[in-house]
This record gives sequence, structure tokens and C-alpha cells, in this order.
Amino acid sequence: MKATTIYAARDVRLENQPDPTILKPTDAIVKVVATCVCGSDLWYYRGDNPVVDPFRIGHEFVGIVQAVGAQVRSLHEGDFVIAPFMYSDNTCPHCRVGIQSACSAGGFWGRPDRDGLMADGGQGEYVRVPLADGTLVATRETPDAAMVPSLLALSDVMGTGWHAAMAARVQEGDTVVVVGDGAVGLSGVLAAARMGAERVVAMSQHEERHKIARSLGATDVIAERGEAGEAAVLELTGSVGADAVLECVGTGQAMTTAITIARPGATVGYVGAPHGVELPVRNMFHRNVGVAGGVAPVRQYLPALRDEVLAGTINPGLVFDLDLPLDKVAEGYAAMDERRVIKTMLRP
Amino acid sequence: MKATTIYAARDVRLENQPDPTILKPTDAIVKVVATCVCGSDLWYYRGDNPVVDPFRIGHEFVGIVQAVGAQVRSLHEGDFVIAPFMYSDNTCPHCRVGIQSACSAGGFWGRPDRDGLMADGGQGEYVRVPLADGTLVATRETPDAAMVPSLLALSDVMGTGWHAAMAARVQEGDTVVVVGDGAVGLSGVLAAARMGAERVVAMSQHEERHKIARSLGATDVIAERGEAGEAAVLELTGSVGADAVLECVGTGQAMTTAITIARPGATVGYVGAPHGVELPVRNMFHRNVGVAGGVAPVRQYLPALRDEVLAGTINPGLVFDLDLPLDKVAEGYAAMDERRVIKTMLRP
Repeated sequence: MKATTIYAARDVRLENQPDPTILKPTDAIVKVVATCVCGSDLWYYRGDNPVVDPFRIGHEFVGIVQAVGAQVRSLHEGDFVIAPFMYSDNTCPHCRVGIQSACSAGGFWGRPDRDGLMADGGQGEYVRVPLADGTLVATRETPDAAMVPSLLALSDVMGTGWHAAMAARVQEGDTVVVVGDGAVGLSGVLAAARMGAERVVAMSQHEERHKIARSLGATDVIAERGEAGEAAVLELTGSVGADAVLECVGTGQAMTTAITIARPGATVGYVGAPHGVELPVRNMFHRNVGVAGGVAPVRQYLPALRDEVLAGTINPGLVFDLDLPLDKVAEGYAAMDERRVIKTMLRP
Repeated sequence: MKATTIYAARDVRLENQPDPTILKPTDAIVKVVATCVCGSDLWYYRGDNPVVDPFRIGHEFVGIVQAVGAQVRSLHEGDFVIAPFMYSDNTCPHCRVGIQSACSAGGFWGRPDRDGLMADGGQGEYVRVPLADGTLVATRETPDAAMVPSLLALSDVMGTGWHAAMAARVQEGDTVVVVGDGAVGLSGVLAAARMGAERVVAMSQHEERHKIARSLGATDVIAERGEAGEAAVLELTGSVGADAVLECVGTGQAMTTAITIARPGATVGYVGAPHGVELPVRNMFHRNVGVAGGVAPVRQYLPALRDEVLAGTINPGLVFDLDLPLDKVAEGYAAMDERRVIKTMLRP
């Protein structure tokens, strides 16, 4: 089969690899229907995170179950499944309270598991899925092809945007500001709107993304950033600040803006892995602004969001604006790296 | 009248001052029945915060209304009232969502208001109360003398401990750890127990405080601190960590411990003003541990906690272990400074 390996910054290659097989009785083999490139894959692609050893990259995919191990109970050959961006057993104490991203048996795609067995990356034709019962979420029937992008978005960005909104405690009627207009930020806009926010303000300096932000539920767009953007939010809220803020970037500037525009008592829900972020604890203390969030437990939200997608109430697949065959994976990365597109879908 | 002024570290003096009068139509004059010394007063007393100019100190008191300004509607001469540690109008947008500590018209006792008028300190015989309608909470009848300590505790420490537990989102059945055994930490123990926590773990190295912690609802006490204390909490929770953590100290070590012992998905509710705290954002992110809290809006909680005290369901006055006449104010500070007592009550 073919699968993608990253060798170094700006060096991703689709190569022949052995077909995966069941290695543990809790494994499943999934034939990938669609996968995609994540903003966090770009950290390696751009050299922000070093590629110490080449590894199989990609952590978002949907597909069809081809085979299951002897201990797999909930999945069967032919099931259409959605994989979260981490695998988890869904039974440990952390999973049971919904933080599957801290699963004590779980791990990351493309990395060794706790026994040293390497997990596959997602950007390939097939994937061996560890802890399949706890990880994969199936649909009742094979969905229409038109549903695939929105179901794929649940692998990561939509669940991550949803986590930001949950962490920020978005309530019906709130004024919510979303910092960041990448696929996660746009998903955060959709999540806040779906949770009943009255006003959803997208902070986005890329004019071509304003339309999609509005189509996902943004009621207002602020194109300025930094202090000018903060001033614009304060003006828009009558100097009160936002009821909830979603920080979907992970930089120091984005977090500073998020905390500055949060009203006293509000929570900043953050899901952008922090790069150069310092939390201004005294400012937070004096204004009662909390921060919550982290590596999104998308597995927690998957069943409910799957049902919303299938019912047509949310359409998170709108974040995909490039659809390529898998053998164009390098172009898929380049297009995102050069900010020509928001998010690339890849079809094996 | 007599009132307390702090001149410099370890120099507090009870002196003659002019009787306060109504200066604005929203003022009330309160004759103080009981006041007390706060851990935060000790920052000045110990020189941790500089005393730039001498000021009238003290921000916790209960008393009897002597006079009200022409615009005061809810209070009458003779009412027994509890004052929160900040005054607030209780009508601005921040007050309306319960963050009276960020009131846009409010301020601190002993400091100038937004018009430059100096507010009185609380450790005196009389206090001019700005924004009296929004600030003071009255009891229906004059309470029994035995109730005074618990009502006085609502001025600050009990509302602050309650805020820590609210910010940490304590739920029924939780295992809650309280870092800090000062009056606020002990109040946090009481708050967590009252909110239905199944297990309330007090981290306290002072053996003489273990008994009072248990009398307020602690089910377990951990005397170790730092890494040994963290290990003890992890052992006690089967390596899972606490469902909620109350950080009631404000030092870097206390916050490090609080974040370390929080289980993934938990929130650290913090109410100790941060001194030398750096939040480990990457650790928090990877474990989904949030922080929330700040300057406690005790005014939000006052009516409900007043009713609980009067009904006898909580007894936060247990934190007072020294009861002195006001003219012994200097000894009241010294006893707390030397850790001979937890909290000093003063009676004019």
C-alpha cells in the first residue's frame, strides 16, 4: 500500500509500505476513504517542530473496516468509521470522564505505543487502528459521498473547535469571540453558533475567509489584530468584553488578545498547542478570567457530532477547500503552507 | 472615633479620626460590631507589599446602619449588615453576571474611589460605606451574638473559599484537594464539603490546624508539601488525580502542586493573589487542566451564605481563634504574623 512519510521540513513523500496486519487482538484494519492535512502537521513541514526521525504522518481519517482482531466487539468488516486524532481505550478513568486525549493506554498516530509498537500514520491507504473498540466511531450505514468531508472534519478540527467552545463554557445568548481563522477557528465559529451564541465574532485578517466564517455562523468579523483588534471587540461589546473567547491559534499574541477581550468572569477556551505563550496570571486574577482547554478529547464529542452531521444540522466539511488524490499529498501540504487553502482533503 | 492606620511594615496604630459622615447620597454610615485581620493585610504588615503612604486598613466588617444617604433604598437605620471586602454598585454589567469584584464603579476599602474620595478602612469604630445599596447585605433581624463570627467570615474568607470551589467546579461526589490551611483554605474545605464533595483533602503542614480542617469537613489531611505532598495525593487517588483543586495560597509552589495533582479535565480554582506564580501552560494544555478564579466576588455569594449561616448549616466562624478588643489591634496582627493564630477578630 501507499502511505505518507515526512523526512524533514518540506519533504513529505508517498511511498510503498507493507500492508498493515492485525498485531494485537484489539486492533482493526481500516481502508482509508478520505484523510487530510492538519495545521499541526505543518509544524513539522515548516520546521517549527524538528523531524528527529522520519515518521508516518497524518492523524485524521475516515474509512471502511477491513478486518478486526479477536477481541474487537463493537466493529465489523464493512463498517464506515471515523477515527479521532488520538487512539484511546475509552475505559480508563480519564476516558470515563471524557478526557480520552489523556487515555492511560492511548497514544498518537505515527508514534510508538506503550509497548513500542509503531502506530500507522493516517495519510495512507490503510491504517492499523490500536484499541479499535475505544477509538473508532461507526456510522449505522455507509454515508453518502457528500457527507464524507463533514464526517472527516470530526476527526480533529470540528471536535477541537467544539472543545474550545465547551472549555469556554459557551451559553445560549452569549457574545463569543473566536481568535483564529484556520480550520479549527472556523469550526469554533460553527460550534459557538450551534451552542446558541447570539453573537459570534470571527477575528480573521484573511478576507477570503470572511465569507466561510459567516456561512458557518459568524455574525461579525473583525479584520484587525493585536491591539486594534482588541479595541474593536471592546467597542463592539460596549467596553464589557466577550462572554466567552475561543483561542484557536496557540501563539502568544493570540492568547494575549483572547485574555484581553474576555469580560471579567469569562473563560478562554484554548485548543491551539501553545507556542511561546505566557499566561499573564496577575491580569487573569484581577479580572477573574480563566483559561481551560488543551488537547481536544474529540472522541468524547464524536458520537453526538456524527449524529448532527448525518442529520444535516452542521456542515463542518466547509473547511475543506482543496480535494486532491493522495498521490498529490506534497502539493496538499504546499498549498496549506503557502496559505493558498484552508485545509486539504486527500483521497487514496 | 478610633480607626486603624498602617504606617509601615509592623506598624499599625489605632488612632482618633473624625467620625465619618454621608458624603454622597448613596453612602451609608455603619457602626462596626466586629472586624478582623486578613491574610492580605499581612502582606503590608510583613513588608511584602510596600506601604507607600499610610492608609486606613481593614476590609472585613459587620455592623449596624447608623445613617443612610438620600438615595439609599434598601437599608435603614438599625439594620445589621455584612460588608464584602470590596464595595460595588451591583448594577453594572460585571455585577449583573456576578463579578462584583470587577464592578465598574466599585473599589477597595481604605483607597480613593473613582472621584478621588477616600474610602474608610474596616478596622475602626465607624465606616462610611460607598454605594451602600449595592454593597451591604442585611439580615432580617439583628442576629444573636453567637452568629457574629460566622457572619463576619462572609465578608471575605468564606466567600473567597466558596469562590475557589465554584471556580474549580466542585460537583457532588468529587474528590477535592484544598492547597493551603489559612482561613481561606479552611473556608474552601467547608465550601467543598457543603457542595457535596465525597472526599475533601486538606493539605496542611500545621498539625494544630488538622482538627479544625476536619471539623469543617476534611475527610483526609496531607501534611507533606511539595513533591511529597503531590505524591501523597496521587497515591490517595489511585494515580488519577483530584477532580477539583482549590489553590488558596498564591505562591508558585502552591500553584505548581495544585496543577500537578489535578486530574486531566479538572480545574484549579485559585483565590490566593499570585505572588511569584508562573502558569505552566504546556503542561496544562497536554493534561487539559484549567485555571479559574481571581479576586472573589463575595457579594455574589453573600445572600445565600448569610442564609446558610443563619440556618446553622455552615459555621465558617470557626476560623477565628483569637477575639480581641479593637484597641489590641497591633497584638492581633502580631499573633497572625507569628502564626500563633489563624485569624483575629476585633471588637470595637
